[in-house]
Amino acid sequence: MFEQLGLIGCGLMGGSFALAMKRAGLVKRVVGYSKSPSTTERARQMGIIDVEAPSALLAVSGADLVLLAVPVSATEATFKAIRHLITNNMLIMDVGSTKRDVVDAARKVLRDHIGSFVPAHPITGKEVSGVEHTDPELYRGKQVVLTPIDKTQPGHLKRAQELWEGLGCHVQQMAPEAHDAAFAAVSHLPHLLAFALVHAISSQPQGKDFLSLAGPGFRDFTRIAASDPKMWRDVMLANRLELVEQAKMFQRSLLNMLQEAEQGNGEKLEEMIAQASLVRTHWRMGQKK
Amino acid sequence: MFEQLGLIGCGLMGGSFALAMKRAGLVKRVVGYSKSPSTTERARQMGIIDVEAPSALLAVSGADLVLLAVPVSATEATFKAIRHLITNNMLIMDVGSTKRDVVDAARKVLRDHIGSFVPAHPITGKEVSGVEHTDPELYRGKQVVLTPIDKTQPGHLKRAQELWEGLGCHVQQMAPEAHDAAFAAVSHLPHLLAFALVHAISSQPQGKDFLSLAGPGFRDFTRIAASDPKMWRDVMLANRLELVEQAKMFQRSLLNMLQEAEQGNGEKLEEMIAQASLVRTHWRMGQKK
Repeated sequence: MFEQLGLIGCGLMGGSFALAMKRAGLVKRVVGYSKSPSTTERARQMGIIDVEAPSALLAVSGADLVLLAVPVSATEATFKAIRHLITNNMLIMDVGSTKRDVVDAARKVLRDHIGSFVPAHPITGKEVSGVEHTDPELYRGKQVVLTPIDKTQPGHLKRAQELWEGLGCHVQQMAPEAHDAAFAAVSHLPHLLAFALVHAISSQPQGKDFLSLAGPGFRDFTRIAASDPKMWRDVMLANRLELVEQAKMFQRSLLNMLQEAEQGNGEKLEEMIAQASLVRTHWRMGQKK
Repeated sequence: MFEQLGLIGCGLMGGSFALAMKRAGLVKRVVGYSKSPSTTERARQMGIIDVEAPSALLAVSGADLVLLAVPVSATEATFKAIRHLITNNMLIMDVGSTKRDVVDAARKVLRDHIGSFVPAHPITGKEVSGVEHTDPELYRGKQVVLTPIDKTQPGHLKRAQELWEGLGCHVQQMAPEAHDAAFAAVSHLPHLLAFALVHAISSQPQGKDFLSLAGPGFRDFTRIAASDPKMWRDVMLANRLELVEQAKMFQRSLLNMLQEAEQGNGEKLEEMIAQASLVRTHWRMGQKK
Protein backbone atom coordinates (compact mmCIF):
# COMPACT_ATOMS: atom_id res chain seq x y z
CA MET A 1 0.00 0.00 0.00
CA PHE A 2 1.38 3.41 -0.95
CA GLU A 3 0.58 6.71 0.73
CA GLN A 4 1.00 9.06 -2.22
CA LEU A 5 1.46 8.56 -5.94
CA GLY A 6 3.21 11.36 -7.79
CA LEU A 7 1.92 11.01 -11.34
CA ILE A 8 3.77 12.79 -14.14
CA GLY A 9 1.64 12.60 -17.26
CA CYS A 10 -2.12 12.15 -16.81
CA GLY A 11 -2.83 10.71 -20.28
CA LEU A 12 -3.99 7.23 -21.23
CA MET A 13 -1.15 5.29 -19.58
CA GLY A 14 -0.69 7.47 -16.48
CA GLY A 15 -4.34 8.20 -15.84
CA SER A 16 -5.32 4.56 -16.24
CA PHE A 17 -2.56 3.57 -13.80
CA ALA A 18 -3.88 5.99 -11.16
CA LEU A 19 -7.44 4.70 -11.59
CA ALA A 20 -6.27 1.08 -11.38
CA MET A 21 -4.21 1.78 -8.25
CA LYS A 22 -7.16 3.45 -6.56
CA ARG A 23 -9.58 0.71 -7.52
CA ALA A 24 -7.15 -1.95 -6.19
CA GLY A 25 -6.81 -0.02 -2.93
CA LEU A 26 -3.06 0.27 -3.45
CA VAL A 27 -2.75 4.04 -3.02
CA LYS A 28 -4.34 6.65 -0.74
CA ARG A 29 -3.72 9.88 -2.64
CA VAL A 30 -2.66 10.87 -6.15
CA VAL A 31 -0.91 14.14 -6.91
CA GLY A 32 -0.76 14.69 -10.66
CA TYR A 33 0.97 16.86 -13.20
CA SER A 34 0.60 17.08 -16.98
CA LYS A 35 2.41 19.37 -19.37
CA SER A 36 -0.95 20.76 -20.44
CA PRO A 37 -2.79 22.40 -17.48
CA SER A 38 -6.15 21.55 -19.05
CA THR A 39 -5.23 17.84 -18.95
CA THR A 40 -4.28 18.10 -15.29
CA GLU A 41 -7.54 19.87 -14.51
CA ARG A 42 -9.56 17.32 -16.47
CA ALA A 43 -7.80 14.49 -14.61
CA ARG A 44 -8.84 16.02 -11.28
CA GLN A 45 -12.41 16.55 -12.44
CA MET A 46 -12.55 12.91 -13.55
CA GLY A 47 -11.29 11.74 -10.16
CA ILE A 48 -8.09 10.34 -11.61
CA ILE A 49 -5.93 12.57 -9.43
CA ASP A 50 -6.80 14.18 -6.10
CA VAL A 51 -4.52 17.19 -6.25
CA GLU A 52 -3.18 19.15 -9.24
CA ALA A 53 0.54 19.90 -9.07
CA PRO A 54 1.83 22.98 -10.92
CA SER A 55 5.09 21.24 -11.88
CA ALA A 56 6.62 17.78 -12.20
CA LEU A 57 8.85 18.60 -9.22
CA LEU A 58 5.90 19.41 -6.99
CA ALA A 59 4.09 16.25 -8.11
CA VAL A 60 7.00 14.28 -6.68
CA SER A 61 7.11 16.18 -3.38
CA GLY A 62 6.05 13.89 -0.52
CA ALA A 63 5.35 10.89 -2.77
CA ASP A 64 6.47 7.34 -1.90
CA LEU A 65 5.65 6.21 -5.46
CA VAL A 66 6.35 8.14 -8.67
CA LEU A 67 5.21 7.15 -12.15
CA LEU A 68 6.60 8.80 -15.26
CA ALA A 69 4.01 8.38 -18.01
CA VAL A 70 5.48 10.74 -20.60
CA PRO A 71 6.71 10.15 -24.17
CA VAL A 72 10.07 8.30 -24.10
CA SER A 73 11.73 11.34 -25.69
CA ALA A 74 10.76 13.42 -22.61
CA THR A 75 12.19 10.99 -20.03
CA GLU A 76 15.57 12.65 -19.50
CA ALA A 77 14.10 16.16 -19.16
CA THR A 78 11.54 14.82 -16.66
CA PHE A 79 14.25 13.16 -14.54
CA LYS A 80 16.11 16.49 -14.51
CA ALA A 81 12.97 18.33 -13.45
CA ILE A 82 12.35 16.06 -10.46
CA ARG A 83 15.79 14.94 -9.29
CA HIS A 84 16.09 17.44 -6.41
CA LEU A 85 13.16 15.94 -4.55
CA ILE A 86 13.94 12.25 -5.15
CA THR A 87 14.70 10.22 -2.01
CA ASN A 88 16.01 6.70 -1.66
CA ASN A 89 12.71 5.56 -0.14
CA MET A 90 10.77 6.58 -3.19
CA LEU A 91 9.91 3.93 -5.81
CA ILE A 92 10.14 5.50 -9.27
CA MET A 93 8.91 3.77 -12.44
CA ASP A 94 8.25 4.61 -16.07
CA VAL A 95 6.01 2.93 -18.66
CA GLY A 96 8.10 3.46 -21.80
CA SER A 97 8.22 0.93 -24.65
CA THR A 98 12.02 1.20 -24.95
CA LYS A 99 14.27 0.61 -21.98
CA ARG A 100 17.97 1.11 -22.77
CA ASP A 101 17.53 4.83 -23.50
CA VAL A 102 15.47 5.27 -20.32
CA VAL A 103 18.10 3.48 -18.23
CA ASP A 104 20.83 5.62 -19.83
CA ALA A 105 18.90 8.79 -18.96
CA ALA A 106 18.39 7.53 -15.40
CA ARG A 107 22.10 6.74 -14.95
CA LYS A 108 23.04 10.16 -16.26
CA VAL A 109 20.56 12.23 -14.27
CA LEU A 110 19.60 10.32 -11.13
CA ARG A 111 23.14 9.23 -10.13
CA ASP A 112 23.07 8.34 -6.37
CA HIS A 113 19.31 7.82 -6.50
CA ILE A 114 19.36 5.41 -9.44
CA GLY A 115 18.59 2.54 -7.04
CA SER A 116 15.06 3.95 -6.62
CA PHE A 117 14.26 3.59 -10.28
CA VAL A 118 12.66 0.37 -11.58
CA PRO A 119 12.24 0.63 -15.38
CA ALA A 120 8.89 -0.85 -16.44
CA HIS A 121 7.15 -1.60 -19.72
CA PRO A 122 3.50 -2.61 -19.37
CA ILE A 123 2.49 -4.18 -22.70
CA THR A 124 -0.83 -2.48 -23.21
CA GLY A 125 -2.34 0.53 -24.92
CA LYS A 126 -5.11 1.70 -27.22
CA GLU A 127 -5.25 3.21 -30.71
CA VAL A 128 -6.47 6.40 -29.02
CA SER A 129 -4.64 8.45 -26.40
CA GLY A 130 -5.43 11.19 -23.90
CA VAL A 131 -7.01 11.55 -20.48
CA GLU A 132 -10.53 11.08 -21.87
CA HIS A 133 -9.71 7.46 -22.82
CA THR A 134 -8.32 6.39 -19.44
CA ASP A 135 -9.54 2.99 -18.32
CA PRO A 136 -9.02 1.35 -14.91
CA GLU A 137 -8.92 -2.05 -16.68
CA LEU A 138 -6.14 -1.09 -19.14
CA TYR A 139 -3.51 -3.10 -17.26
CA ARG A 140 -5.50 -6.12 -16.09
CA GLY A 141 -4.25 -9.44 -17.45
CA LYS A 142 -1.43 -7.76 -19.38
CA GLN A 143 2.29 -8.51 -19.34
CA VAL A 144 4.69 -6.11 -17.62
CA VAL A 145 8.42 -6.30 -18.23
CA LEU A 146 10.71 -4.91 -15.53
CA THR A 147 14.31 -4.24 -16.58
CA PRO A 148 16.33 -3.72 -13.39
CA ILE A 149 20.06 -2.96 -13.53
CA ASP A 150 22.80 -3.91 -11.07
CA LYS A 151 22.20 -0.77 -8.98
CA THR A 152 18.44 -1.26 -8.65
CA GLN A 153 17.55 -1.71 -4.96
CA PRO A 154 16.15 -5.23 -4.46
CA GLY A 155 13.51 -3.87 -2.07
CA HIS A 156 12.19 -1.47 -4.70
CA LEU A 157 12.23 -4.19 -7.34
CA LYS A 158 10.18 -6.45 -5.06
CA ARG A 159 7.68 -3.68 -4.32
CA ALA A 160 7.37 -2.93 -8.05
CA GLN A 161 6.71 -6.58 -8.85
CA GLU A 162 4.02 -6.81 -6.13
CA LEU A 163 2.41 -3.56 -7.25
CA TRP A 164 1.94 -4.72 -10.86
CA GLU A 165 0.74 -8.13 -9.70
CA GLY A 166 -1.74 -6.28 -7.51
CA LEU A 167 -3.11 -4.69 -10.70
CA GLY A 168 -3.60 -8.14 -12.24
CA CYS A 169 -0.49 -8.12 -14.44
CA HIS A 170 1.92 -10.93 -15.34
CA VAL A 171 5.37 -9.63 -14.44
CA GLN A 172 8.68 -10.76 -15.86
CA GLN A 173 12.21 -9.42 -15.56
CA MET A 174 14.71 -8.95 -18.37
CA ALA A 175 17.89 -7.00 -19.00
CA PRO A 176 17.19 -3.65 -20.76
CA GLU A 177 19.14 -4.81 -23.83
CA ALA A 178 17.22 -8.08 -24.11
CA HIS A 179 13.96 -6.17 -23.75
CA ASP A 180 14.87 -3.76 -26.53
CA ALA A 181 16.00 -6.57 -28.84
CA ALA A 182 12.74 -8.45 -28.28
CA PHE A 183 10.54 -5.43 -28.96
CA ALA A 184 12.60 -4.41 -31.96
CA ALA A 185 11.85 -7.88 -33.36
CA VAL A 186 8.15 -8.25 -32.57
CA SER A 187 6.94 -4.65 -32.57
CA HIS A 188 9.24 -1.90 -33.83
CA LEU A 189 10.46 -3.67 -36.98
CA PRO A 190 6.94 -4.83 -37.99
CA HIS A 191 5.77 -1.22 -37.66
CA LEU A 192 8.69 -0.04 -39.79
CA LEU A 193 7.96 -2.69 -42.45
CA ALA A 194 4.28 -1.74 -42.58
CA PHE A 195 5.15 1.97 -42.85
CA ALA A 196 7.72 1.23 -45.57
CA LEU A 197 5.32 -0.92 -47.62
CA VAL A 198 2.55 1.69 -47.63
CA HIS A 199 5.12 4.42 -48.31
CA ALA A 200 6.52 2.49 -51.27
CA ILE A 201 3.12 1.71 -52.80
CA SER A 202 1.75 5.22 -52.35
CA SER A 203 4.91 6.68 -53.92
CA GLN A 204 4.23 4.89 -57.23
CA PRO A 205 2.23 6.61 -60.00
CA GLN A 206 -0.25 3.68 -60.03
CA GLY A 207 -0.31 3.44 -56.23
CA LYS A 208 -3.96 4.44 -55.88
CA ASP A 209 -5.07 1.84 -58.43
CA PHE A 210 -3.03 -0.80 -56.64
CA LEU A 211 -4.53 0.10 -53.27
CA SER A 212 -8.08 -0.14 -54.64
CA LEU A 213 -7.43 -3.84 -55.33
CA ALA A 214 -6.06 -4.66 -51.88
CA GLY A 215 -7.94 -7.20 -49.76
CA PRO A 216 -8.16 -8.47 -46.18
CA GLY A 217 -4.53 -9.70 -46.09
CA PHE A 218 -3.32 -6.18 -46.84
CA ARG A 219 -5.82 -4.70 -44.40
CA ASP A 220 -4.49 -6.69 -41.44
CA PHE A 221 -0.82 -6.52 -42.46
CA THR A 222 -0.91 -2.71 -42.68
CA ARG A 223 -3.24 -1.95 -39.76
CA ILE A 224 -0.23 -0.79 -37.70
CA ALA A 225 0.86 1.53 -40.54
CA ALA A 226 -1.95 3.89 -39.46
CA SER A 227 -0.21 4.44 -36.10
CA ASP A 228 0.82 7.85 -34.72
CA PRO A 229 3.87 9.22 -36.61
CA LYS A 230 5.38 11.25 -33.73
CA MET A 231 5.19 8.41 -31.25
CA TRP A 232 6.71 5.95 -33.69
CA ARG A 233 9.42 8.35 -34.78
CA ASP A 234 10.44 8.53 -31.11
CA VAL A 235 10.36 4.77 -30.64
CA MET A 236 12.43 4.13 -33.80
CA LEU A 237 15.00 6.73 -32.74
CA ALA A 238 15.16 5.53 -29.14
CA ASN A 239 15.66 1.89 -30.17
CA ARG A 240 17.59 2.38 -33.38
CA LEU A 241 20.51 0.13 -32.36
CA GLU A 242 18.37 -2.97 -31.86
CA LEU A 243 16.07 -2.00 -34.72
CA VAL A 244 18.99 -1.96 -37.15
CA GLU A 245 20.19 -5.32 -35.79
CA GLN A 246 16.78 -6.91 -36.29
CA ALA A 247 16.43 -5.32 -39.71
CA LYS A 248 19.72 -6.98 -40.75
CA MET A 249 18.45 -10.41 -39.79
CA PHE A 250 15.14 -9.74 -41.51
CA GLN A 251 16.99 -8.66 -44.67
CA ARG A 252 18.96 -11.90 -44.65
CA SER A 253 15.74 -13.93 -44.70
CA LEU A 254 13.99 -11.67 -47.22
CA LEU A 255 16.88 -11.53 -49.69
CA ASN A 256 17.34 -15.29 -49.45
CA MET A 257 13.70 -15.88 -50.27
CA LEU A 258 13.73 -13.39 -53.13
CA GLN A 259 16.86 -14.98 -54.55
CA GLU A 260 15.36 -18.47 -54.41
CA ALA A 261 12.26 -17.13 -56.18
CA GLU A 262 14.30 -15.35 -58.86
CA GLN A 263 16.33 -18.48 -59.50
CA GLY A 264 13.17 -20.57 -59.65
CA ASN A 265 14.37 -22.68 -56.72
CA GLY A 266 10.95 -23.69 -55.45
CA GLU A 267 12.16 -26.28 -53.00
CA LYS A 268 14.34 -23.92 -50.94
CA LEU A 269 11.71 -21.19 -51.12
CA GLU A 270 8.99 -23.51 -49.89
CA GLU A 271 11.22 -24.68 -47.04
CA MET A 272 11.66 -21.11 -45.76
CA ILE A 273 7.97 -20.29 -46.16
CA ALA A 274 7.05 -23.54 -44.40
CA GLN A 275 9.27 -22.70 -41.40
CA ALA A 276 7.51 -19.35 -41.01
CA SER A 277 4.05 -20.80 -41.60
CA LEU A 278 4.56 -23.53 -39.01
CA VAL A 279 5.84 -21.10 -36.36
CA ARG A 280 3.01 -18.64 -36.98
CA THR A 281 0.34 -21.36 -37.01
CA HIS A 282 1.41 -22.52 -33.55
CA TRP A 283 1.99 -19.07 -32.06
CA ARG A 284 -0.58 -17.81 -29.54
CA MET A 285 -0.53 -14.30 -28.14
CA GLY A 286 0.73 -14.05 -24.57
CA GLN A 287 1.70 -17.71 -24.43
CA LYS A 288 5.10 -18.74 -23.13
CA LYS A 289 6.85 -21.15 -25.54
CA MET B 1 -27.19 -18.59 -70.13
CA PHE B 2 -24.78 -21.45 -70.74
CA GLU B 3 -25.73 -25.00 -71.67
CA GLN B 4 -22.83 -26.87 -70.12
CA LEU B 5 -20.01 -25.89 -67.79
CA GLY B 6 -16.88 -27.99 -67.99
CA LEU B 7 -15.32 -27.61 -64.56
CA ILE B 8 -11.68 -28.59 -64.07
CA GLY B 9 -10.94 -28.57 -60.37
CA CYS B 10 -13.87 -29.07 -57.98
CA GLY B 11 -12.25 -27.49 -54.91
CA LEU B 12 -13.17 -24.29 -53.09
CA MET B 13 -12.90 -21.93 -56.06
CA GLY B 14 -14.27 -24.22 -58.76
CA GLY B 15 -16.99 -25.87 -56.71
CA SER B 16 -18.22 -22.53 -55.39
CA PHE B 17 -18.33 -21.19 -58.96
CA ALA B 18 -20.50 -24.11 -60.11
CA LEU B 19 -22.87 -23.65 -57.16
CA ALA B 20 -23.13 -19.90 -57.79
CA MET B 21 -23.77 -20.41 -61.53
CA LYS B 22 -26.55 -22.90 -60.80
CA ARG B 23 -28.14 -20.71 -58.15
CA ALA B 24 -28.08 -17.72 -60.53
CA GLY B 25 -29.69 -19.86 -63.25
CA LEU B 26 -26.73 -19.20 -65.55
CA VAL B 27 -25.95 -22.82 -66.44
CA LYS B 28 -27.99 -25.94 -67.16
CA ARG B 29 -25.49 -28.70 -66.59
CA VAL B 30 -22.06 -29.07 -64.94
CA VAL B 31 -19.58 -31.75 -65.96
CA GLY B 32 -16.71 -31.84 -63.48
CA TYR B 33 -13.25 -33.29 -63.13
CA SER B 34 -10.77 -33.20 -60.25
CA LYS B 35 -7.33 -34.75 -60.05
CA SER B 36 -8.49 -36.76 -57.05
CA PRO B 37 -11.41 -39.08 -57.97
CA SER B 38 -12.75 -38.88 -54.42
CA THR B 39 -13.09 -35.09 -54.79
CA THR B 40 -14.99 -35.48 -58.07
CA GLU B 41 -17.30 -38.05 -56.47
CA ARG B 42 -17.86 -35.85 -53.44
CA ALA B 43 -18.68 -32.90 -55.72
CA ARG B 44 -21.36 -34.96 -57.46
CA GLN B 45 -22.80 -36.20 -54.17
CA MET B 46 -22.98 -32.59 -52.95
CA GLY B 47 -24.81 -31.51 -56.11
CA ILE B 48 -21.96 -29.25 -57.21
CA ILE B 49 -21.53 -31.14 -60.49
CA ASP B 50 -24.08 -33.24 -62.36
CA VAL B 51 -21.72 -35.61 -64.14
CA GLU B 52 -18.27 -36.89 -63.19
CA ALA B 53 -15.72 -36.75 -66.01
CA PRO B 54 -12.83 -39.25 -65.91
CA SER B 55 -10.38 -36.71 -67.38
CA ALA B 56 -9.95 -32.97 -67.92
CA LEU B 57 -10.36 -33.55 -71.66
CA LEU B 58 -13.72 -35.26 -71.21
CA ALA B 59 -14.90 -32.51 -68.85
CA VAL B 60 -14.42 -30.07 -71.72
CA SER B 61 -16.22 -32.21 -74.30
CA GLY B 62 -19.48 -30.55 -75.32
CA ALA B 63 -19.10 -27.56 -72.98
CA ASP B 64 -19.79 -23.97 -74.04
CA LEU B 65 -18.10 -22.70 -70.86
CA VAL B 66 -14.91 -24.05 -69.30
CA LEU B 67 -13.46 -23.01 -65.96
CA LEU B 68 -9.94 -23.96 -64.91
CA ALA B 69 -9.83 -23.87 -61.12
CA VAL B 70 -6.46 -25.52 -60.56
CA PRO B 71 -3.23 -24.30 -58.87
CA VAL B 72 -1.50 -21.75 -61.15
CA SER B 73 1.44 -24.12 -61.49
CA ALA B 74 -0.88 -26.69 -63.15
CA THR B 75 -2.33 -24.28 -65.74
CA GLU B 76 -0.05 -25.14 -68.64
CA ALA B 77 -0.43 -28.90 -68.18
CA THR B 78 -4.21 -28.47 -67.99
CA PHE B 79 -4.29 -26.46 -71.23
CA LYS B 80 -2.28 -29.24 -72.87
CA ALA B 81 -4.69 -31.87 -71.59
CA ILE B 82 -7.76 -30.14 -73.03
CA ARG B 83 -6.57 -28.38 -76.19
CA HIS B 84 -7.78 -31.02 -78.65
CA LEU B 85 -11.41 -30.44 -77.74
CA ILE B 86 -11.34 -26.64 -77.52
CA THR B 87 -13.51 -24.83 -80.06
CA ASN B 88 -13.73 -21.14 -80.91
CA ASN B 89 -17.27 -20.96 -79.54
CA MET B 90 -16.17 -22.07 -76.10
CA LEU B 91 -15.54 -19.46 -73.40
CA ILE B 92 -12.58 -20.56 -71.30
CA MET B 93 -11.58 -18.85 -68.05
CA ASP B 94 -9.28 -19.43 -65.11
CA VAL B 95 -9.33 -18.08 -61.54
CA GLY B 96 -5.59 -17.76 -60.90
CA SER B 97 -4.08 -15.02 -58.75
CA THR B 98 -1.27 -14.35 -61.24
CA LYS B 99 -2.02 -13.55 -64.86
CA ARG B 100 1.12 -13.09 -66.96
CA ASP B 101 2.23 -16.69 -66.48
CA VAL B 102 -1.28 -17.94 -67.29
CA VAL B 103 -1.41 -15.81 -70.45
CA ASP B 104 2.05 -17.08 -71.46
CA ALA B 105 0.90 -20.67 -71.01
CA ALA B 106 -2.27 -19.97 -73.04
CA ARG B 107 -0.29 -18.37 -75.91
CA LYS B 108 2.09 -21.31 -75.96
CA VAL B 109 -0.47 -24.10 -75.80
CA LEU B 110 -3.80 -22.82 -77.14
CA ARG B 111 -2.38 -21.03 -80.26
CA ASP B 112 -5.29 -20.60 -82.74
CA HIS B 113 -7.84 -20.96 -79.96
CA ILE B 114 -6.31 -18.31 -77.70
CA GLY B 115 -9.20 -15.95 -78.55
CA SER B 116 -11.53 -18.18 -76.50
CA PHE B 117 -9.56 -17.64 -73.32
CA VAL B 118 -10.47 -14.78 -70.98
CA PRO B 119 -8.01 -14.72 -68.04
CA ALA B 120 -9.87 -13.96 -64.79
CA HIS B 121 -8.90 -13.31 -61.18
CA PRO B 122 -11.82 -13.22 -58.75
CA ILE B 123 -10.50 -11.60 -55.56
CA THR B 124 -11.95 -13.96 -53.01
CA GLY B 125 -11.05 -17.04 -51.02
CA LYS B 126 -11.01 -18.58 -47.57
CA GLU B 127 -8.28 -19.71 -45.17
CA VAL B 128 -9.54 -23.25 -45.78
CA SER B 129 -9.66 -25.08 -49.10
CA GLY B 130 -11.31 -28.19 -50.58
CA VAL B 131 -14.70 -29.25 -51.88
CA GLU B 132 -16.18 -29.45 -48.36
CA HIS B 133 -15.81 -25.68 -47.95
CA THR B 134 -17.53 -24.67 -51.20
CA ASP B 135 -19.94 -21.78 -50.80
CA PRO B 136 -22.39 -20.42 -53.41
CA GLU B 137 -21.87 -16.93 -51.91
CA LEU B 138 -18.06 -16.97 -52.25
CA TYR B 139 -18.10 -14.60 -55.24
CA ARG B 140 -20.98 -12.25 -54.35
CA GLY B 141 -19.95 -8.61 -53.97
CA LYS B 142 -16.32 -9.38 -54.77
CA GLN B 143 -14.03 -7.80 -57.36
CA VAL B 144 -13.08 -9.74 -60.50
CA VAL B 145 -10.19 -8.61 -62.67
CA LEU B 146 -10.24 -9.71 -66.33
CA THR B 147 -6.94 -9.40 -68.18
CA PRO B 148 -7.71 -9.76 -71.92
CA ILE B 149 -4.92 -9.61 -74.51
CA ASP B 150 -5.06 -8.30 -78.09
CA LYS B 151 -6.19 -11.70 -79.43
CA THR B 152 -9.05 -12.14 -76.97
CA GLN B 153 -12.37 -12.30 -78.88
CA PRO B 154 -14.50 -9.26 -77.90
CA GLY B 155 -17.62 -11.46 -77.85
CA HIS B 156 -16.08 -13.80 -75.29
CA LEU B 157 -14.83 -10.90 -73.22
CA LYS B 158 -18.34 -9.43 -73.15
CA ARG B 159 -19.89 -12.76 -72.16
CA ALA B 160 -17.29 -13.18 -69.42
CA GLN B 161 -18.03 -9.72 -68.04
CA GLU B 162 -21.79 -10.41 -68.02
CA LEU B 163 -21.31 -13.81 -66.39
CA TRP B 164 -19.35 -12.41 -63.42
CA GLU B 165 -21.78 -9.52 -63.05
CA GLY B 166 -24.55 -12.13 -63.03
CA LEU B 167 -22.84 -13.64 -59.98
CA GLY B 168 -22.90 -10.25 -58.22
CA CYS B 169 -19.26 -9.35 -58.87
CA HIS B 170 -17.68 -5.97 -59.68
CA VAL B 171 -15.70 -6.49 -62.87
CA GLN B 172 -12.74 -4.48 -64.10
CA GLN B 173 -10.29 -4.99 -66.93
CA MET B 174 -6.53 -4.57 -66.77
CA ALA B 175 -3.49 -5.63 -68.76
CA PRO B 176 -1.93 -8.85 -67.36
CA GLU B 177 1.27 -6.96 -66.48
CA ALA B 178 -0.60 -4.22 -64.61
CA HIS B 179 -2.57 -6.88 -62.73
CA ASP B 180 0.57 -8.71 -61.68
CA ALA B 181 2.29 -5.48 -60.59
CA ALA B 182 -0.74 -4.50 -58.49
CA PHE B 183 -0.99 -7.88 -56.75
CA ALA B 184 2.75 -8.08 -56.22
CA ALA B 185 2.42 -4.75 -54.37
CA VAL B 186 -0.69 -5.35 -52.27
CA SER B 187 -0.64 -9.12 -51.77
CA HIS B 188 2.43 -11.10 -52.80
CA LEU B 189 5.05 -8.78 -51.29
CA PRO B 190 3.17 -8.40 -47.98
CA HIS B 191 3.02 -12.20 -47.75
CA LEU B 192 6.75 -12.44 -48.46
CA LEU B 193 7.53 -9.77 -45.82
CA ALA B 194 5.40 -11.55 -43.22
CA PHE B 195 7.05 -14.91 -44.01
CA ALA B 196 10.52 -13.30 -43.87
CA LEU B 197 9.87 -11.59 -40.53
CA VAL B 198 8.65 -14.76 -38.82
CA HIS B 199 11.49 -16.72 -40.45
CA ALA B 200 14.07 -14.22 -39.19
CA ILE B 201 12.70 -14.12 -35.63
CA SER B 202 12.33 -17.87 -35.33
CA SER B 203 15.88 -18.39 -36.62
CA GLN B 204 17.35 -16.48 -33.65
CA PRO B 205 18.40 -18.34 -30.47
CA GLN B 206 16.08 -16.10 -28.40
CA GLY B 207 13.30 -16.25 -30.96
CA LYS B 208 10.86 -18.13 -28.73
CA ASP B 209 11.31 -15.62 -25.91
CA PHE B 210 10.76 -12.76 -28.33
CA LEU B 211 7.59 -14.34 -29.70
CA SER B 212 6.16 -14.81 -26.20
CA LEU B 213 6.21 -11.00 -25.82
CA ALA B 214 4.46 -10.23 -29.11
CA GLY B 215 1.11 -8.43 -29.00
CA PRO B 216 -1.88 -7.61 -31.21
CA GLY B 217 0.16 -5.58 -33.73
CA PHE B 218 2.35 -8.61 -34.41
CA ARG B 219 -0.69 -10.89 -34.49
CA ASP B 220 -2.39 -8.95 -37.29
CA PHE B 221 0.81 -8.15 -39.21
CA THR B 222 1.80 -11.83 -39.37
CA ARG B 223 -1.64 -13.41 -39.83
CA ILE B 224 -0.83 -14.03 -43.51
CA ALA B 225 2.46 -15.73 -42.54
CA ALA B 226 0.39 -18.77 -41.54
CA SER B 227 -0.71 -19.25 -45.17
CA ASP B 228 -0.21 -22.43 -47.18
CA PRO B 229 3.49 -22.85 -48.17
CA LYS B 230 2.92 -24.73 -51.45
CA MET B 231 0.36 -22.29 -52.78
CA TRP B 232 2.52 -19.29 -51.91
CA ARG B 233 5.66 -20.87 -53.30
CA ASP B 234 3.77 -21.19 -56.60
CA VAL B 235 2.50 -17.61 -56.50
CA MET B 236 5.96 -16.19 -55.69
CA LEU B 237 7.53 -18.19 -58.51
CA ALA B 238 4.80 -17.35 -61.02
CA ASN B 239 5.00 -13.62 -60.28
CA ARG B 240 8.68 -13.30 -59.48
CA LEU B 241 9.36 -10.54 -62.02
CA GLU B 242 6.85 -8.11 -60.55
CA LEU B 243 7.58 -9.31 -57.02
CA VAL B 244 11.25 -8.40 -57.40
CA GLU B 245 10.30 -5.00 -58.86
CA GLN B 246 7.99 -4.22 -55.95
CA ALA B 247 10.58 -5.50 -53.48
CA LYS B 248 13.10 -3.01 -54.92
CA MET B 249 10.76 -0.09 -54.34
CA PHE B 250 9.95 -1.34 -50.86
CA GLN B 251 13.68 -1.64 -50.08
CA ARG B 252 14.22 1.95 -51.15
CA SER B 253 11.61 3.16 -48.63
CA LEU B 254 12.79 0.82 -45.87
CA LEU B 255 16.49 1.61 -46.20
CA ASN B 256 15.74 5.34 -46.32
CA MET B 257 13.76 5.12 -43.11
CA LEU B 258 16.41 3.00 -41.39
CA GLN B 259 19.11 5.44 -42.46
CA GLU B 260 17.20 8.45 -41.14
CA ALA B 261 16.71 6.58 -37.84
CA GLU B 262 20.39 5.63 -37.60
CA GLN B 263 21.47 9.20 -38.27
CA GLY B 264 18.99 10.49 -35.71
CA ASN B 265 17.20 12.50 -38.40
CA GLY B 266 13.77 12.52 -36.75
CA GLU B 267 12.22 15.08 -39.06
CA LYS B 268 12.75 13.10 -42.29
CA LEU B 269 11.80 9.86 -40.56
CA GLU B 270 8.56 11.33 -39.25
CA GLU B 271 7.75 12.70 -42.70
CA MET B 272 7.97 9.24 -44.28
CA ILE B 273 5.99 7.61 -41.46
CA ALA B 274 3.38 10.36 -41.71
CA GLN B 275 2.89 9.76 -45.46
CA ALA B 276 2.25 6.07 -44.81
CA SER B 277 0.04 6.71 -41.80
CA LEU B 278 -2.12 9.20 -43.69
CA VAL B 279 -2.57 6.89 -46.70
CA ARG B 280 -3.42 3.91 -44.52
CA THR B 281 -5.81 5.90 -42.31
CA HIS B 282 -7.85 6.93 -45.38
CA TRP B 283 -7.71 3.58 -47.19
CA ARG B 284 -10.90 1.52 -47.23
CA MET B 285 -11.02 -2.01 -48.59
CA GLY B 286 -12.68 -2.32 -52.01
CA GLN B 287 -13.01 1.43 -52.41
CA LYS B 288 -11.89 3.11 -55.62
CA LYS B 289 -9.56 6.07 -54.88
